[in-house]
Amino acid sequence: MALNELVFVGLGLYDEKDISLRGLEEIREADAVFAEFYTSLMPGLSIRKLEEMTGKAVNVVSRRVLEEEGGKLIFEEAKKGKAVFLVPGDPLIATTHVDLRISAEKQGIKTRVIHGASVVSAVRGISGLQNYKYGKAVTIPFSEKGFVSETPYNVIRENKKMGLHTMCYLDIKAEEQRYLSIKEALQTLLELEKQKKEQVVTPRTLVIGVARAGSIEPVVKAGYIEEVINYNFGAPPHTLIFPGKLHFMEAEALITLADAPEEVREMTE
Amino acid sequence: MALNELVFVGLGLYDEKDISLRGLEEIREADAVFAEFYTSLMPGLSIRKLEEMTGKAVNVVSRRVLEEEGGKLIFEEAKKGKAVFLVPGDPLIATTHVDLRISAEKQGIKTRVIHGASVVSAVRGISGLQNYKYGKAVTIPFSEKGFVSETPYNVIRENKKMGLHTMCYLDIKAEEQRYLSIKEALQTLLELEKQKKEQVVTPRTLVIGVARAGSIEPVVKAGYIEEVINYNFGAPPHTLIFPGKLHFMEAEALITLADAPEEVREMTE
Repeated sequence: MALNELVFVGLGLYDEKDISLRGLEEIREADAVFAEFYTSLMPGLSIRKLEEMTGKAVNVVSRRVLEEEGGKLIFEEAKKGKAVFLVPGDPLIATTHVDLRISAEKQGIKTRVIHGASVVSAVRGISGLQNYKYGKAVTIPFSEKGFVSETPYNVIRENKKMGLHTMCYLDIKAEEQRYLSIKEALQTLLELEKQKKEQVVTPRTLVIGVARAGSIEPVVKAGYIEEVINYNFGAPPHTLIFPGKLHFMEAEALITLADAPEEVREMTE
Repeated sequence: MALNELVFVGLGLYDEKDISLRGLEEIREADAVFAEFYTSLMPGLSIRKLEEMTGKAVNVVSRRVLEEEGGKLIFEEAKKGKAVFLVPGDPLIATTHVDLRISAEKQGIKTRVIHGASVVSAVRGISGLQNYKYGKAVTIPFSEKGFVSETPYNVIRENKKMGLHTMCYLDIKAEEQRYLSIKEALQTLLELEKQKKEQVVTPRTLVIGVARAGSIEPVVKAGYIEEVINYNFGAPPHTLIFPGKLHFMEAEALITLADAPEEVREMTE
Protein backbone atom coordinates (compact mmCIF):
# COMPACT_ATOMS: atom_id res chain seq x y z
CA MET A 1 0.00 0.00 0.00
CA ALA A 2 1.47 3.28 -1.08
CA LEU A 3 1.75 6.06 1.47
CA ASN A 4 1.26 9.60 0.30
CA GLU A 5 4.36 11.27 1.55
CA LEU A 6 7.44 13.25 0.71
CA VAL A 7 10.68 12.10 2.32
CA PHE A 8 13.67 14.47 2.32
CA VAL A 9 16.89 12.44 2.28
CA GLY A 10 20.33 13.97 2.89
CA LEU A 11 23.08 12.60 0.64
CA GLY A 12 25.99 13.84 2.72
CA LEU A 13 29.08 15.57 1.45
CA TYR A 14 31.08 13.77 -1.21
CA ASP A 15 29.69 10.89 -3.26
CA GLU A 16 26.94 8.25 -3.44
CA LYS A 17 28.46 6.29 -0.54
CA ASP A 18 27.75 9.11 1.91
CA ILE A 19 24.05 8.33 2.14
CA SER A 20 22.93 6.48 5.28
CA LEU A 21 21.59 2.92 5.19
CA ARG A 22 18.21 4.38 6.20
CA GLY A 23 18.33 6.86 3.31
CA LEU A 24 19.16 4.08 0.87
CA GLU A 25 16.16 2.07 2.10
CA GLU A 26 13.89 5.06 1.57
CA ILE A 27 14.98 5.34 -2.06
CA ARG A 28 14.49 1.64 -2.67
CA GLU A 29 10.93 1.83 -1.35
CA ALA A 30 10.07 5.04 -3.25
CA ASP A 31 7.55 5.38 -6.07
CA ALA A 32 9.38 8.42 -7.45
CA VAL A 33 12.82 9.86 -6.72
CA PHE A 34 13.89 13.48 -7.26
CA ALA A 35 17.18 15.23 -6.51
CA GLU A 36 18.66 18.72 -6.64
CA PHE A 37 22.33 19.58 -6.87
CA TYR A 38 22.37 23.35 -7.10
CA THR A 39 22.48 24.23 -3.39
CA SER A 40 25.79 22.41 -2.76
CA LEU A 41 28.49 20.61 -4.70
CA MET A 42 29.09 16.89 -4.09
CA PRO A 43 32.36 16.50 -6.00
CA GLY A 44 32.38 12.71 -6.32
CA LEU A 45 28.71 11.98 -6.91
CA SER A 46 27.65 9.79 -9.83
CA ILE A 47 23.89 9.78 -10.38
CA ARG A 48 24.26 6.66 -12.52
CA LYS A 49 25.90 4.78 -9.62
CA LEU A 50 23.17 5.97 -7.26
CA GLU A 51 20.60 4.60 -9.70
CA GLU A 52 22.42 1.27 -9.97
CA MET A 53 22.64 0.97 -6.17
CA THR A 54 18.95 1.62 -5.68
CA GLY A 55 17.30 0.36 -8.86
CA LYS A 56 15.44 3.67 -9.17
CA ALA A 57 15.61 6.45 -11.74
CA VAL A 58 16.68 9.74 -10.16
CA ASN A 59 15.03 12.85 -11.63
CA VAL A 60 17.30 15.84 -11.16
CA VAL A 61 15.31 19.05 -10.78
CA SER A 62 16.58 22.55 -11.48
CA ARG A 63 16.34 25.69 -9.38
CA ARG A 64 13.54 26.80 -11.73
CA VAL A 65 11.41 23.71 -11.02
CA LEU A 66 11.79 24.18 -7.26
CA GLU A 67 11.72 27.93 -6.86
CA GLU A 68 9.58 29.18 -9.75
CA GLU A 69 7.22 26.25 -10.10
CA GLY A 70 7.25 25.63 -6.34
CA GLY A 71 7.94 21.92 -6.60
CA LYS A 72 4.61 21.05 -8.33
CA LEU A 73 6.26 18.15 -10.16
CA ILE A 74 7.34 16.58 -6.87
CA PHE A 75 3.99 17.14 -5.14
CA GLU A 76 2.12 15.37 -7.97
CA GLU A 77 4.10 12.21 -7.28
CA ALA A 78 3.82 12.60 -3.49
CA LYS A 79 0.03 12.71 -3.84
CA LYS A 80 0.06 9.35 -5.64
CA GLY A 81 2.58 7.51 -3.48
CA LYS A 82 5.90 7.86 -1.80
CA ALA A 83 8.18 10.51 -3.26
CA VAL A 84 11.78 10.88 -2.12
CA PHE A 85 13.68 14.13 -2.57
CA LEU A 86 17.45 13.81 -2.41
CA VAL A 87 19.52 16.81 -1.38
CA PRO A 88 23.25 17.31 -0.82
CA GLY A 89 24.32 17.50 2.83
CA ASP A 90 21.60 17.57 5.47
CA PRO A 91 18.10 18.53 4.30
CA LEU A 92 16.48 21.82 5.37
CA ILE A 93 19.73 23.73 5.85
CA ALA A 94 18.93 25.41 2.51
CA THR A 95 15.87 27.69 2.81
CA THR A 96 14.53 26.29 -0.48
CA HIS A 97 14.01 22.92 1.16
CA VAL A 98 12.14 24.42 4.09
CA ASP A 99 9.89 26.32 1.65
CA LEU A 100 9.19 23.07 -0.21
CA ARG A 101 8.37 21.28 3.01
CA ILE A 102 5.95 24.01 4.12
CA SER A 103 4.17 23.91 0.73
CA ALA A 104 3.88 20.13 0.88
CA GLU A 105 2.40 20.12 4.38
CA LYS A 106 -0.05 22.89 3.46
CA GLN A 107 -1.30 20.62 0.65
CA GLY A 108 -1.82 17.76 3.09
CA ILE A 109 1.30 15.82 2.07
CA LYS A 110 3.06 14.24 5.02
CA THR A 111 6.79 14.93 5.15
CA ARG A 112 9.71 13.22 6.88
CA VAL A 113 13.44 13.90 7.03
CA ILE A 114 16.37 11.47 6.86
CA HIS A 115 19.43 13.40 7.90
CA GLY A 116 22.86 13.36 6.29
CA ALA A 117 26.31 14.70 7.05
CA SER A 118 26.38 18.46 6.59
CA VAL A 119 29.06 21.04 5.94
CA VAL A 120 27.59 22.85 8.98
CA SER A 121 28.94 20.24 11.40
CA ALA A 122 31.69 18.66 9.28
CA VAL A 123 33.72 21.85 8.87
CA ARG A 124 33.22 22.81 12.52
CA GLY A 125 34.55 19.35 13.42
CA ILE A 126 37.61 19.22 11.20
CA SER A 127 38.52 22.87 11.91
CA GLY A 128 39.65 21.75 15.36
CA LEU A 129 37.81 24.74 16.85
CA GLN A 130 35.11 24.28 19.47
CA ASN A 131 31.51 24.08 18.35
CA TYR A 132 30.32 26.42 21.14
CA LYS A 133 32.64 29.20 20.11
CA TYR A 134 31.20 29.73 16.65
CA GLY A 135 29.08 32.86 16.32
CA LYS A 136 26.76 33.77 13.46
CA ALA A 137 27.78 32.22 10.11
CA VAL A 138 27.87 34.10 6.81
CA THR A 139 28.14 33.44 3.09
CA ILE A 140 30.73 35.33 1.06
CA PRO A 141 29.05 36.04 -2.28
CA PHE A 142 30.59 36.54 -5.70
CA SER A 143 31.33 40.23 -6.28
CA GLU A 144 29.15 41.04 -9.27
CA LYS A 145 29.57 44.14 -11.43
CA GLY A 146 31.82 45.83 -8.95
CA PHE A 147 29.36 45.45 -6.08
CA VAL A 148 30.99 43.99 -2.99
CA SER A 149 28.78 43.04 -0.03
CA GLU A 150 30.03 44.38 3.32
CA THR A 151 28.04 41.82 5.30
CA PRO A 152 30.79 39.18 5.67
CA TYR A 153 33.28 41.79 6.88
CA ASN A 154 30.81 43.10 9.44
CA VAL A 155 29.84 39.63 10.67
CA ILE A 156 33.51 38.67 11.16
CA ARG A 157 34.12 41.96 13.03
CA GLU A 158 31.15 41.50 15.37
CA ASN A 159 32.03 37.87 16.12
CA LYS A 160 35.66 38.82 16.81
CA LYS A 161 34.57 41.49 19.29
CA MET A 162 32.91 38.70 21.24
CA GLY A 163 35.87 36.32 20.82
CA LEU A 164 33.79 34.07 18.56
CA HIS A 165 34.75 32.15 15.41
CA THR A 166 33.09 32.92 12.06
CA MET A 167 32.19 30.20 9.58
CA CYS A 168 32.19 31.64 6.06
CA TYR A 169 30.42 29.56 3.44
CA LEU A 170 31.61 30.45 -0.05
CA ASP A 171 29.05 31.19 -2.73
CA ILE A 172 28.27 28.65 -5.43
CA LYS A 173 26.52 29.07 -8.75
CA ALA A 174 26.23 25.40 -9.55
CA GLU A 175 24.33 25.89 -12.78
CA GLU A 176 27.27 27.93 -14.12
CA GLN A 177 29.76 25.58 -12.40
CA ARG A 178 31.23 28.53 -10.50
CA TYR A 179 32.44 28.01 -6.95
CA LEU A 180 34.02 30.85 -5.01
CA SER A 181 37.54 29.92 -3.91
CA ILE A 182 39.30 30.71 -0.64
CA LYS A 183 41.68 32.95 -2.61
CA GLU A 184 38.85 34.95 -4.18
CA ALA A 185 37.03 35.25 -0.86
CA LEU A 186 40.17 36.57 0.85
CA GLN A 187 40.81 39.03 -1.99
CA THR A 188 37.28 40.39 -1.57
CA LEU A 189 37.72 40.79 2.17
CA LEU A 190 41.13 42.49 1.84
CA GLU A 191 39.54 44.87 -0.65
CA LEU A 192 36.87 45.73 1.92
CA GLU A 193 39.56 46.25 4.55
CA LYS A 194 41.10 48.92 2.31
CA GLN A 195 37.81 50.79 2.31
CA LYS A 196 36.78 50.27 5.92
CA LYS A 197 40.18 50.25 7.66
CA GLU A 198 38.97 48.56 10.84
CA GLN A 199 41.83 46.03 11.03
CA VAL A 200 39.43 43.09 10.80
CA VAL A 201 40.96 41.34 7.77
CA THR A 202 44.66 42.05 7.24
CA PRO A 203 47.52 40.02 5.72
CA ARG A 204 48.48 39.08 9.31
CA THR A 205 44.99 37.83 10.25
CA LEU A 206 44.83 34.12 11.14
CA VAL A 207 42.39 32.10 9.02
CA ILE A 208 41.58 28.45 8.36
CA GLY A 209 40.84 27.28 4.85
CA VAL A 210 38.96 24.00 4.36
CA ALA A 211 38.60 22.33 0.98
CA ARG A 212 36.39 19.36 0.11
CA ALA A 213 35.23 18.56 3.66
CA GLY A 214 33.93 15.01 3.78
CA SER A 215 35.82 13.91 0.67
CA ILE A 216 38.60 11.34 0.45
CA GLU A 217 41.18 14.13 0.37
CA PRO A 218 40.00 17.06 2.47
CA VAL A 219 42.48 19.87 3.06
CA VAL A 220 42.56 21.93 6.26
CA LYS A 221 45.18 24.68 6.35
CA ALA A 222 45.54 27.37 9.00
CA GLY A 223 47.84 30.37 8.71
CA TYR A 224 48.03 34.10 8.13
CA ILE A 225 46.09 35.42 5.17
CA GLU A 226 49.33 36.41 3.37
CA GLU A 227 50.24 32.71 3.33
CA VAL A 228 46.82 31.07 2.97
CA ILE A 229 45.84 33.30 0.03
CA ASN A 230 48.57 31.65 -2.05
CA TYR A 231 48.05 28.10 -0.78
CA ASN A 232 46.87 25.57 -3.35
CA PHE A 233 43.65 24.13 -1.91
CA GLY A 234 42.72 22.33 -5.12
CA ALA A 235 39.19 21.70 -6.36
CA PRO A 236 36.00 23.09 -4.74
CA PRO A 237 34.02 23.29 -2.55
CA HIS A 238 35.95 25.60 -0.20
CA THR A 239 35.07 27.03 3.22
CA LEU A 240 36.82 29.71 5.25
CA ILE A 241 36.96 30.25 9.01
CA PHE A 242 38.00 33.36 10.93
CA PRO A 243 38.95 32.27 14.46
CA GLY A 244 38.04 34.43 17.43
CA LYS A 245 39.90 33.98 20.72
CA LEU A 246 41.69 30.63 20.86
CA HIS A 247 41.65 28.21 23.75
CA PHE A 248 45.02 26.48 24.11
CA MET A 249 43.46 23.18 22.94
CA GLU A 250 42.23 24.93 19.82
CA ALA A 251 45.72 26.27 19.16
CA GLU A 252 47.12 22.74 19.57
CA ALA A 253 44.54 21.46 17.10
CA LEU A 254 45.43 24.14 14.53
CA ILE A 255 49.15 23.40 14.85
CA THR A 256 48.82 19.60 14.78
CA LEU A 257 45.90 19.10 12.39
CA ALA A 258 45.97 22.24 10.21
CA ASP A 259 49.68 23.05 9.91
CA ALA A 260 49.34 26.41 11.67
CA PRO A 261 52.53 28.27 12.66
CA GLU A 262 53.77 27.33 16.15
CA GLU A 263 53.38 30.93 17.35
CA VAL A 264 49.58 30.43 17.34
CA ARG A 265 50.21 28.93 20.78
CA GLU A 266 51.06 32.42 22.03
CA MET A 267 47.77 33.81 20.74
CA THR A 268 45.62 31.88 23.22
CA GLU A 269 43.52 33.60 25.83
CA MET B 1 48.61 -4.96 3.87
CA ALA B 2 47.46 -3.27 7.02
CA LEU B 3 47.60 0.52 7.24
CA ASN B 4 48.42 2.10 10.53
CA GLU B 5 45.60 4.53 10.97
CA LEU B 6 42.72 5.66 13.11
CA VAL B 7 39.45 6.38 11.33
CA PHE B 8 36.76 8.36 13.14
CA VAL B 9 33.32 7.30 11.89
CA GLY B 10 30.12 9.20 12.70
CA LEU B 11 27.14 6.97 13.47
CA GLY B 12 24.47 9.64 13.01
CA LEU B 13 21.54 10.30 15.29
CA TYR B 14 19.22 7.40 15.98
CA ASP B 15 20.18 3.78 15.32
CA GLU B 16 22.60 1.50 13.44
CA LYS B 17 20.99 2.37 10.08
CA ASP B 18 22.16 5.99 10.32
CA ILE B 19 25.74 5.17 9.42
CA SER B 20 26.79 5.98 5.85
CA LEU B 21 27.71 3.27 3.33
CA ARG B 22 31.28 4.61 3.49
CA GLY B 23 31.30 4.31 7.28
CA LEU B 24 30.04 0.74 7.07
CA GLU B 25 32.84 -0.15 4.64
CA GLU B 26 35.41 1.30 7.02
CA ILE B 27 34.19 -0.94 9.84
CA ARG B 28 34.20 -4.02 7.63
CA GLU B 29 37.83 -3.34 6.67
CA ALA B 30 38.96 -2.55 10.22
CA ASP B 31 41.37 -4.60 12.32
CA ALA B 32 39.85 -3.25 15.54
CA VAL B 33 36.62 -1.35 16.21
CA PHE B 34 35.95 0.93 19.20
CA ALA B 35 32.93 3.06 20.06
CA GLU B 36 31.89 5.57 22.71
CA PHE B 37 28.31 6.42 23.65
CA TYR B 38 28.72 8.90 26.49
CA THR B 39 28.88 12.15 24.50
CA SER B 40 25.42 11.71 22.91
CA LEU B 41 22.43 9.40 23.15
CA MET B 42 21.44 7.31 20.11
CA PRO B 43 18.06 6.07 21.34
CA GLY B 44 17.56 3.20 18.88
CA LEU B 45 21.11 1.86 18.61
CA SER B 46 21.77 -1.85 19.05
CA ILE B 47 25.46 -2.69 19.25
CA ARG B 48 24.61 -6.32 18.58
CA LYS B 49 22.92 -5.40 15.29
CA LEU B 50 25.88 -3.22 14.34
CA GLU B 51 28.16 -6.20 14.98
CA GLU B 52 25.94 -8.49 12.89
CA MET B 53 25.88 -6.00 10.01
CA THR B 54 29.64 -5.64 9.95
CA GLY B 55 30.97 -8.96 11.21
CA LYS B 56 33.18 -7.09 13.69
CA ALA B 57 33.22 -6.95 17.47
CA VAL B 58 32.61 -3.42 18.74
CA ASN B 59 34.54 -2.47 21.89
CA VAL B 60 32.64 0.20 23.79
CA VAL B 61 35.01 2.49 25.69
CA SER B 62 34.11 4.58 28.72
CA ARG B 63 34.82 8.22 29.46
CA ARG B 64 37.58 7.00 31.78
CA VAL B 65 39.40 5.12 28.99
CA LEU B 66 39.27 8.14 26.68
CA GLU B 67 39.81 11.01 29.06
CA GLU B 68 41.93 9.59 31.86
CA GLU B 69 43.91 7.02 29.91
CA GLY B 70 43.99 9.27 26.83
CA GLY B 71 42.86 6.58 24.42
CA LYS B 72 45.98 4.38 24.88
CA LEU B 73 43.90 1.25 24.21
CA ILE B 74 42.84 2.60 20.82
CA PHE B 75 46.30 3.81 19.83
CA GLU B 76 47.81 0.39 20.50
CA GLU B 77 45.52 -1.09 17.86
CA ALA B 78 46.03 1.82 15.44
CA LYS B 79 49.79 1.20 15.61
CA LYS B 80 49.29 -2.41 14.51
CA GLY B 81 46.70 -1.88 11.78
CA LYS B 82 43.50 -0.05 11.00
CA ALA B 83 41.47 1.05 14.02
CA VAL B 84 38.00 2.50 13.63
CA PHE B 85 36.48 4.68 16.34
CA LEU B 86 32.70 5.00 16.18
CA VAL B 87 31.06 8.07 17.68
CA PRO B 88 27.44 9.24 17.83
CA GLY B 89 26.57 12.07 15.44
CA ASP B 90 29.41 13.68 13.50
CA PRO B 91 32.95 13.13 14.83
CA LEU B 92 34.99 15.96 16.34
CA ILE B 93 32.02 18.01 17.51
CA ALA B 94 32.84 16.74 21.01
CA THR B 95 36.14 18.18 22.27
CA THR B 96 37.14 14.72 23.54
CA HIS B 97 37.36 13.47 19.97
CA VAL B 98 39.54 16.38 18.88
CA ASP B 99 41.87 15.70 21.83
CA LEU B 100 42.07 12.05 20.82
CA ARG B 101 42.86 12.99 17.22
CA ILE B 102 45.63 15.39 18.26
CA SER B 103 47.21 12.72 20.50
CA ALA B 104 47.06 10.16 17.70
CA GLU B 105 48.71 12.47 15.15
CA LYS B 106 51.42 13.45 17.66
CA GLN B 107 52.25 9.74 17.98
CA GLY B 108 52.54 9.41 14.21
CA ILE B 109 49.18 7.70 13.70
CA LYS B 110 47.39 8.91 10.57
CA THR B 111 43.78 9.89 11.16
CA ARG B 112 40.77 10.27 8.86
CA VAL B 113 37.15 11.29 9.42
CA ILE B 114 33.95 9.81 7.96
CA HIS B 115 31.19 12.25 8.74
CA GLY B 116 27.71 11.46 10.00
CA ALA B 117 24.47 13.34 10.58
CA SER B 118 24.82 15.66 13.58
CA VAL B 119 22.42 17.30 15.99
CA VAL B 120 24.24 20.54 15.07
CA SER B 121 22.72 20.61 11.57
CA ALA B 122 19.70 18.31 12.08
CA VAL B 123 18.05 20.47 14.73
CA ARG B 124 18.83 23.67 12.81
CA GLY B 125 17.15 22.07 9.79
CA ILE B 126 13.98 20.74 11.41
CA SER B 127 13.55 23.88 13.54
CA GLY B 128 12.45 25.69 10.37
CA LEU B 129 14.71 28.61 11.35
CA GLN B 130 17.47 29.82 9.05
CA ASN B 131 20.97 28.48 9.52
CA TYR B 132 22.55 31.94 9.17
CA LYS B 133 20.52 33.42 11.95
CA TYR B 134 21.84 31.17 14.70
CA GLY B 135 24.28 32.87 17.05
CA LYS B 136 26.56 31.21 19.58
CA ALA B 137 25.21 27.89 20.89
CA VAL B 138 25.17 26.87 24.56
CA THR B 139 24.66 23.80 26.73
CA ILE B 140 22.21 23.99 29.62
CA PRO B 141 23.80 21.93 32.40
CA PHE B 142 22.15 20.03 35.23
CA SER B 143 21.81 22.27 38.30
CA GLU B 144 23.91 20.49 40.90
CA LYS B 145 23.76 21.16 44.66
CA GLY B 146 21.86 24.39 44.23
CA PHE B 147 24.41 25.83 41.78
CA VAL B 148 22.75 27.20 38.64
CA SER B 149 24.97 28.35 35.76
CA GLU B 150 24.05 31.81 34.43
CA THR B 151 25.83 31.20 31.11
CA PRO B 152 22.83 29.95 29.10
CA TYR B 153 20.72 32.91 30.23
CA ASN B 154 23.46 35.35 29.23
CA VAL B 155 24.07 33.69 25.85
CA ILE B 156 20.34 33.80 25.02
CA ARG B 157 20.21 37.48 26.05
CA GLU B 158 23.22 38.47 23.93
CA ASN B 159 21.95 36.58 20.87
CA LYS B 160 18.49 38.15 21.24
CA LYS B 161 20.00 41.63 21.32
CA MET B 162 21.42 40.88 17.87
CA GLY B 163 18.20 39.27 16.64
CA LEU B 164 19.89 35.85 16.56
CA HIS B 165 18.55 32.41 17.47
CA THR B 166 20.11 30.37 20.29
CA MET B 167 20.58 26.62 20.06
CA CYS B 168 20.57 25.13 23.55
CA TYR B 169 21.94 21.63 23.84
CA LEU B 170 20.72 19.91 26.99
CA ASP B 171 23.21 18.23 29.28
CA ILE B 172 23.55 14.46 29.36
CA LYS B 173 25.17 12.21 31.92
CA ALA B 174 25.00 9.05 29.87
CA GLU B 175 26.79 6.89 32.39
CA GLU B 176 24.05 7.69 34.94
CA GLN B 177 21.38 7.56 32.19
CA ARG B 178 20.36 11.13 32.99
CA TYR B 179 19.28 13.42 30.17
CA LEU B 180 18.14 16.96 30.90
CA SER B 181 14.57 17.48 29.64
CA ILE B 182 13.08 20.57 27.98
CA LYS B 183 10.89 21.01 31.06
CA GLU B 184 13.85 20.95 33.45
CA ALA B 185 15.85 23.32 31.22
CA LEU B 186 12.98 25.81 31.11
CA GLN B 187 12.49 25.58 34.89
CA THR B 188 16.17 26.41 35.39
CA LEU B 189 15.98 29.40 33.06
CA LEU B 190 12.76 30.73 34.66
CA GLU B 191 14.49 30.45 38.02
CA LEU B 192 17.38 32.55 36.69
CA GLU B 193 14.90 35.11 35.33
CA LYS B 194 13.55 35.56 38.88
CA GLN B 195 17.05 36.48 40.06
CA LYS B 196 18.20 38.55 37.09
CA LYS B 197 14.90 40.16 36.02
CA GLU B 198 16.07 41.08 32.53
CA GLN B 199 12.95 39.78 30.75
CA VAL B 200 14.96 37.30 28.70
CA VAL B 201 13.08 34.12 29.65
CA THR B 202 9.48 34.68 30.71
CA PRO B 203 6.34 32.52 30.50
CA ARG B 204 5.46 34.51 27.33
CA THR B 205 8.81 33.90 25.60
CA LEU B 206 8.58 31.92 22.36
CA VAL B 207 10.65 28.73 22.30
CA ILE B 208 10.97 25.63 20.16
CA GLY B 209 11.41 22.23 21.75
CA VAL B 210 12.87 19.40 19.69
CA ALA B 211 12.87 15.79 20.87
CA ARG B 212 14.67 12.86 19.27
CA ALA B 213 15.91 14.68 16.14
CA GLY B 214 16.77 12.13 13.49
CA SER B 215 14.63 9.38 14.99
CA ILE B 216 11.56 7.76 13.45
CA GLU B 217 9.31 9.95 15.61
CA PRO B 218 10.93 13.33 16.16
CA VAL B 219 8.83 16.00 17.86
CA VAL B 220 9.16 19.72 17.06
CA LYS B 221 6.88 22.00 19.07
CA ALA B 222 6.97 25.80 19.12
CA GLY B 223 5.02 27.96 21.57
CA TYR B 224 5.26 30.16 24.62
CA ILE B 225 7.19 28.75 27.54
CA GLU B 226 4.00 28.56 29.68
CA GLU B 227 2.66 26.05 27.12
CA VAL B 228 5.85 24.26 26.04
CA ILE B 229 6.93 23.61 29.65
CA ASN B 230 3.93 21.30 30.09
CA TYR B 231 4.09 19.68 26.67
CA ASN B 232 4.84 15.95 26.61
CA PHE B 233 7.94 15.60 24.44
CA GLY B 234 8.50 11.94 25.36
CA ALA B 235 11.85 10.22 25.62
CA PRO B 236 15.28 11.95 25.31
CA PRO B 237 17.37 13.44 23.80
CA HIS B 238 15.82 16.92 23.89
CA THR B 239 17.03 20.24 22.44
CA LEU B 240 15.70 23.75 23.00
CA ILE B 241 15.81 26.81 20.74
CA PHE B 242 15.25 30.46 21.64
CA PRO B 243 14.35 32.30 18.42
CA GLY B 244 15.64 35.80 17.79
CA LYS B 245 13.91 38.03 15.24
CA LEU B 246 11.74 36.01 12.87
CA HIS B 247 11.65 36.37 9.13
CA PHE B 248 8.12 35.79 7.83
CA MET B 249 9.21 32.49 6.22
CA GLU B 250 10.51 31.36 9.60
CA ALA B 251 7.17 32.24 11.20
CA GLU B 252 5.38 30.23 8.48
CA ALA B 253 7.69 27.28 9.18
CA LEU B 254 6.99 27.43 12.93
CA ILE B 255 3.21 27.57 12.36
CA THR B 256 3.10 24.84 9.71
CA LEU B 257 5.82 22.47 10.90
CA ALA B 258 6.00 23.12 14.66
CA ASP B 259 2.40 23.91 15.62
CA ALA B 260 3.22 27.46 16.75
CA PRO B 261 0.33 29.83 17.54
CA GLU B 262 -0.85 31.81 14.48
CA GLU B 263 0.03 35.11 16.17
CA VAL B 264 3.72 34.30 15.62
CA ARG B 265 3.10 35.77 12.16
CA GLU B 266 2.72 39.20 13.79
CA MET B 267 6.08 38.87 15.54
CA THR B 268 8.13 39.01 12.31
CA GLU B 269 10.52 41.82 11.56
